[in-house]
Amino acid sequence: MAHPMMLTLDAKPYPFVFSPAHTALLVIDMQRDFLLPNGFGEIQGGSLEAVQASISPVMSLLHSCRQARLAIFHTREGHKPDLSDCPSSKLIRQNGSPKNAQHLKVIGDTGEMGRLLVRGERGHDIVDELQPLPGEILIDKPGKGAFWNTAIMEKLKAKAITHLLICGVTTECCFATTLREANDRGFECCGIEEATAGYNDSFKCPTLDMIHWSEGLFGFIAALQPLLETLAPLTSDVGGVGTRTENPAQPEFSGDLSISNLQTSYRKGLSPTTVIETLFGKIEEYQQTDPAVWIHLETKALVMERVKEIEAKWPDKSKLPPLYGVPFSVKDSIDVAGIPTTTACSPLARVPPKSSAAYDTLLQEGAIFIGKTNLDQLATGLTGCRSPFGIPRSVFNHDYISGGSSSGSCVSVGAGLVTFSLATDTAGSGRVPSGFNGVVGYKPTRGLISFQGVTPACLSLDCIALIAGNVNDARTIWDLCVSYDEDDRYSKTAAPIQRHVNSTGPQATSFSFGIPPPESLAVCSPGYRRLFNDAVTRLQALGGHLTPIDWTPFEEGGRLLYDGTFVSERLASLPDGWLDQNRDHLHPVTREVFDAVEARQSTAVQAYRDLQAKALYTRQAERVFAYSSSGVDVVVVPTAPTHWTVEEVLADPIAKNSALGVFSHCANVLDLCAVAVPAGTYPVSVSSGRSGSERLPFSITFLGGSRLDAETLEIARRFEESMALDN
Amino acid sequence: MAHPMMLTLDAKPYPFVFSPAHTALLVIDMQRDFLLPNGFGEIQGGSLEAVQASISPVMSLLHSCRQARLAIFHTREGHKPDLSDCPSSKLIRQNGSPKNAQHLKVIGDTGEMGRLLVRGERGHDIVDELQPLPGEILIDKPGKGAFWNTAIMEKLKAKAITHLLICGVTTECCFATTLREANDRGFECCGIEEATAGYNDSFKCPTLDMIHWSEGLFGFIAALQPLLETLAPLTSDVGGVGTRTENPAQPEFSGDLSISNLQTSYRKGLSPTTVIETLFGKIEEYQQTDPAVWIHLETKALVMERVKEIEAKWPDKSKLPPLYGVPFSVKDSIDVAGIPTTTACSPLARVPPKSSAAYDTLLQEGAIFIGKTNLDQLATGLTGCRSPFGIPRSVFNHDYISGGSSSGSCVSVGAGLVTFSLATDTAGSGRVPSGFNGVVGYKPTRGLISFQGVTPACLSLDCIALIAGNVNDARTIWDLCVSYDEDDRYSKTAAPIQRHVNSTGPQATSFSFGIPPPESLAVCSPGYRRLFNDAVTRLQALGGHLTPIDWTPFEEGGRLLYDGTFVSERLASLPDGWLDQNRDHLHPVTREVFDAVEARQSTAVQAYRDLQAKALYTRQAERVFAYSSSGVDVVVVPTAPTHWTVEEVLADPIAKNSALGVFSHCANVLDLCAVAVPAGTYPVSVSSGRSGSERLPFSITFLGGSRLDAETLEIARRFEESMALDN
Repeated sequence: MAHPMMLTLDAKPYPFVFSPAHTALLVIDMQRDFLLPNGFGEIQGGSLEAVQASISPVMSLLHSCRQARLAIFHTREGHKPDLSDCPSSKLIRQNGSPKNAQHLKVIGDTGEMGRLLVRGERGHDIVDELQPLPGEILIDKPGKGAFWNTAIMEKLKAKAITHLLICGVTTECCFATTLREANDRGFECCGIEEATAGYNDSFKCPTLDMIHWSEGLFGFIAALQPLLETLAPLTSDVGGVGTRTENPAQPEFSGDLSISNLQTSYRKGLSPTTVIETLFGKIEEYQQTDPAVWIHLETKALVMERVKEIEAKWPDKSKLPPLYGVPFSVKDSIDVAGIPTTTACSPLARVPPKSSAAYDTLLQEGAIFIGKTNLDQLATGLTGCRSPFGIPRSVFNHDYISGGSSSGSCVSVGAGLVTFSLATDTAGSGRVPSGFNGVVGYKPTRGLISFQGVTPACLSLDCIALIAGNVNDARTIWDLCVSYDEDDRYSKTAAPIQRHVNSTGPQATSFSFGIPPPESLAVCSPGYRRLFNDAVTRLQALGGHLTPIDWTPFEEGGRLLYDGTFVSERLASLPDGWLDQNRDHLHPVTREVFDAVEARQSTAVQAYRDLQAKALYTRQAERVFAYSSSGVDVVVVPTAPTHWTVEEVLADPIAKNSALGVFSHCANVLDLCAVAVPAGTYPVSVSSGRSGSERLPFSITFLGGSRLDAETLEIARRFEESMALDN
Repeated sequence: MAHPMMLTLDAKPYPFVFSPAHTALLVIDMQRDFLLPNGFGEIQGGSLEAVQASISPVMSLLHSCRQARLAIFHTREGHKPDLSDCPSSKLIRQNGSPKNAQHLKVIGDTGEMGRLLVRGERGHDIVDELQPLPGEILIDKPGKGAFWNTAIMEKLKAKAITHLLICGVTTECCFATTLREANDRGFECCGIEEATAGYNDSFKCPTLDMIHWSEGLFGFIAALQPLLETLAPLTSDVGGVGTRTENPAQPEFSGDLSISNLQTSYRKGLSPTTVIETLFGKIEEYQQTDPAVWIHLETKALVMERVKEIEAKWPDKSKLPPLYGVPFSVKDSIDVAGIPTTTACSPLARVPPKSSAAYDTLLQEGAIFIGKTNLDQLATGLTGCRSPFGIPRSVFNHDYISGGSSSGSCVSVGAGLVTFSLATDTAGSGRVPSGFNGVVGYKPTRGLISFQGVTPACLSLDCIALIAGNVNDARTIWDLCVSYDEDDRYSKTAAPIQRHVNSTGPQATSFSFGIPPPESLAVCSPGYRRLFNDAVTRLQALGGHLTPIDWTPFEEGGRLLYDGTFVSERLASLPDGWLDQNRDHLHPVTREVFDAVEARQSTAVQAYRDLQAKALYTRQAERVFAYSSSGVDVVVVPTAPTHWTVEEVLADPIAKNSALGVFSHCANVLDLCAVAVPAGTYPVSVSSGRSGSERLPFSITFLGGSRLDAETLEIARRFEESMALDN
């Protein structure tokens, strides 16, 4: 947590209490079209005096919130060039008045700053003084309210925002409408008096009065100066915006690769060169103990060149993009242009001309690509023991498996070689190895991050997984990568789930959760069972209500993945006859798995029955989650039932693999999101003393309903925070 | 159209022009908790004087709008008993004030009228004077704005509403917030001054001023009296609300079975007994010319008993439910409790203990069930020639096929034996026979109407289809039957598509449409080609912009249905071995079709490839529609390419059947909605002179994007209206 504290701001009707970590500044429509002469607002008869006077207070407010590292949201009202998102009522009502002498131009007409209120035009953009910085969110809205037909709700939820400081123009119109919408959705809102203004002076006072009347009908109103003072303690350790820091005394690199630490350190003057140089030493050293992590490692020279590029691109340390200088790895089933994608299967290897969309996003945000990681061949496996590129080992103890299929990804994060890794998850491939390496493995709801440019394992179920050192880092990467991709046939918009945001009070500190029944947990090793019980107790202490759930859809849904025909979809992506032609080039275990699938001769009729069963279990699982009143917020399971040694797996590779997925398979079949989080350690029971710690990690997974990623991540984060406080 | 005219109401800032057919009265939160002593409002410190004074003007307004047959919407603010839809901010903000002396009870606490603002409690309900009547829409909203987390947008769109008259409490809070939300969504809104009030007098005036300021920033404000006068011409021909009409001089039954005509006639005193008596004469007569329409016809005695029941249940002619006395038939693959569902396949016949959800809804709304109609066996076929219960004939000419599989349903509507029929559509089964009988066939987006209690043909693609005499009737039935059913695994909510509502002005009179390319239309008969061209010309005259589209996904998607493995899903719903055991009991053509499917031995791998292809074409088709700027509102196709004689089909049953689905198959595969509408007639080319008209009907289908049903129906209705004006 960057800001664990609560702040108190003097306000009407009474002091506004907020946590900076969960608060965003929302700057409404500070566009040229509303603020400058000859813009849309003036053409409609608006007096510019008050709105122009609001620019300076909004600047102070924005500056202060930036320094305090609050999330910053800007909105712009406007329309697509073809006006298809502009209702005709909006277009013609004011202009259509018989008495009209003022509204002589309408939306879409050409003014001095381009077409009025049309996206992409100069007048539509935000005034120079208040231009968004990298990492700030810009919401283009077609309505006066910012919540109609925009992604603002999802973006706020993705950042775990529950409190809003609101400013901007005009008070009577977009400011008030947005505040009212936000209030209905559960955000606790505080309008900043001097930082909002309108076109009609007589409206400002009643508009603000209605907000705080009756002890806060819609929310709070505060003055600017007290807010600046309230935020001051958070803004003391950084230079002013616009300060270009030339060779200051560079702080030392602590070795902490978390995004928040790197961001703070870089802002204070640490150079990415130092961090990445240090890292390469560590990577080379780790190669000695575990040479199976990487399939492709970028040369140090190339990476340092890239580091110089980002340093040159973002010289102002106060305006860095969110992933500036953050090192990451990529599972070798995900395309990076110009580097072979092997999927640990040489006959399939090809050099892609184009990178996957998520990779491109990460680079745009300043991240540093280090290399491509090892995986179970064709992303089929949960052990990490099925790659012709060697067997990566758990970072805790090299006798033990790393887990798979994202074996190299999880080891690279667990060993501190990168901040995060871009991986995949079809049956638990992101979560299981995260659990075995003491890191966070997050499988977002399928379709929220584009799967274009990734070798499919089982296309309709595959998704990108994010491996990171902590939940906040995974959440940050997710938030940046979420994007509807119309070229990904399984892409989803994040929008539709209409759940309010909890704010202060009882609901923010309580939640409900379910767990599998005892008989299903019996497969776990004794150490795992004990630590799972500890985790349940911890969740209860955190305000979690353990609630009985119907476990059937999770069990039956998970079973479909390998016991049914779904595994046939793994063959569906391969060309006809490919398997026969390439049998000899496959890893022997992969070959055995695929031969078994072929031998089943599953029919189309069976496939359609399985799909109908999938739909049924998915619907049943929806009922378990809090779409309905009786549902739970999350279902908590052990990430895996046990942790095998490499030796144990090699002796019985298929059965040992299947056993590992008992709690992970269901997430993909039922279209859930899932976050695996470290949940303690236990003593190694079998050890040759070969290498590593005497303790192994345990992990629990938070399963959440489809598109309830933000909510699920937040509960996982609270658990993680509680674990950290104990250590 | 019930109300083709436009009305003009004196208002601020200038006269409000609206069409009663597209206008709803929206009555906000006239609940006991807000209006009565010791309710939630008074407990929060609200003065009741003004809000109580608003009850009488709201009553006048409501009365007048009811008599004018406007759509009526009521809202109630409140929460589920567990308060899971109440954000903690809302729950505790006002009560949490340190200065609080007033807000001593919060939402969920118990007051004199039950738990405050909790659904199901007495205080939560609407005051006695303003209780909703049957057919009026009641929206329970958790927010102050009526659009957050409710179905109001979808219900308004379903009724083709673009204009709102808004009243209710409180002005400063729920009234204003809702009006602002409605404005953003494209509704043209007019608040009624005397019919809204708040708890703080000083807020009413600025709230209303902000709405109409600047020539209508958010909308219009009108006084009550001018509105009552404006509506007066529409209210003259009906008795007052509450008038119990005892044996008035009964108007004659014109024979017009449309819902709007029956409603008007019943309100004027026509008795359902007269209508249904007359109808039974017609049904018995039609049995002579076409004995294959019904599989089960209710006895006249039983139906007349049911008629007496509804007459007793709703004695007040001014308070009739929307389907009061409306006769309908049900395709015999849809369950009606106690009557065998045969699906035209005796070995599958069973007597269901429970009716399908849609049937139950229709009965609750006062509709009269007449009987169960014939269909192609197992709902597999488009000809109507595949039933052991005989071959229904086109109502136009008995040499020609009725089409299928909903053959009896479409004949029963086309012959004027019922107002509408509940049917199904998997490949065109609702649309093709509608086209061949000159009626409307509407296939809603799959999942909007529960498919529980229907024999599956191809479960993941099946949907209920509505057969009616005109688009408005189909729309009314749909609006009533739409309901998310968590027991239907493919159920969808109608909610997520965020498209504004067009209102007055250019966009309401224009739309864009695409058609198949000439080479795809070449399969049509010459008469069909000519009439399709006429329809395109007519659409252009109506303001339709013919826009080039990518036809590939429609063609390829449609082809998947029978050329791929999807047909295997038809077998997936039958028990293993069923086909072998029952081969001899099948219709010979059905048997041949199923044998051919079995002979293909389609594999699971092929099925998964087809499903991936389906996802791809579905995504491509989405792009064609107006989800994006460049898309079209509808794609228009001939419903079928030609109309065969019964003789032609019997001579070559499988090929002739396949040919018919060339334009209909795609809708189900691509998850579209589709409305088939009559589009003229042409001379019979082959006729033995056996029976019927010398002309045959032609039909076009409007294909719309998933969940864009309301928009698609509205364009279809305009086309139908234009056809009617010509005749």
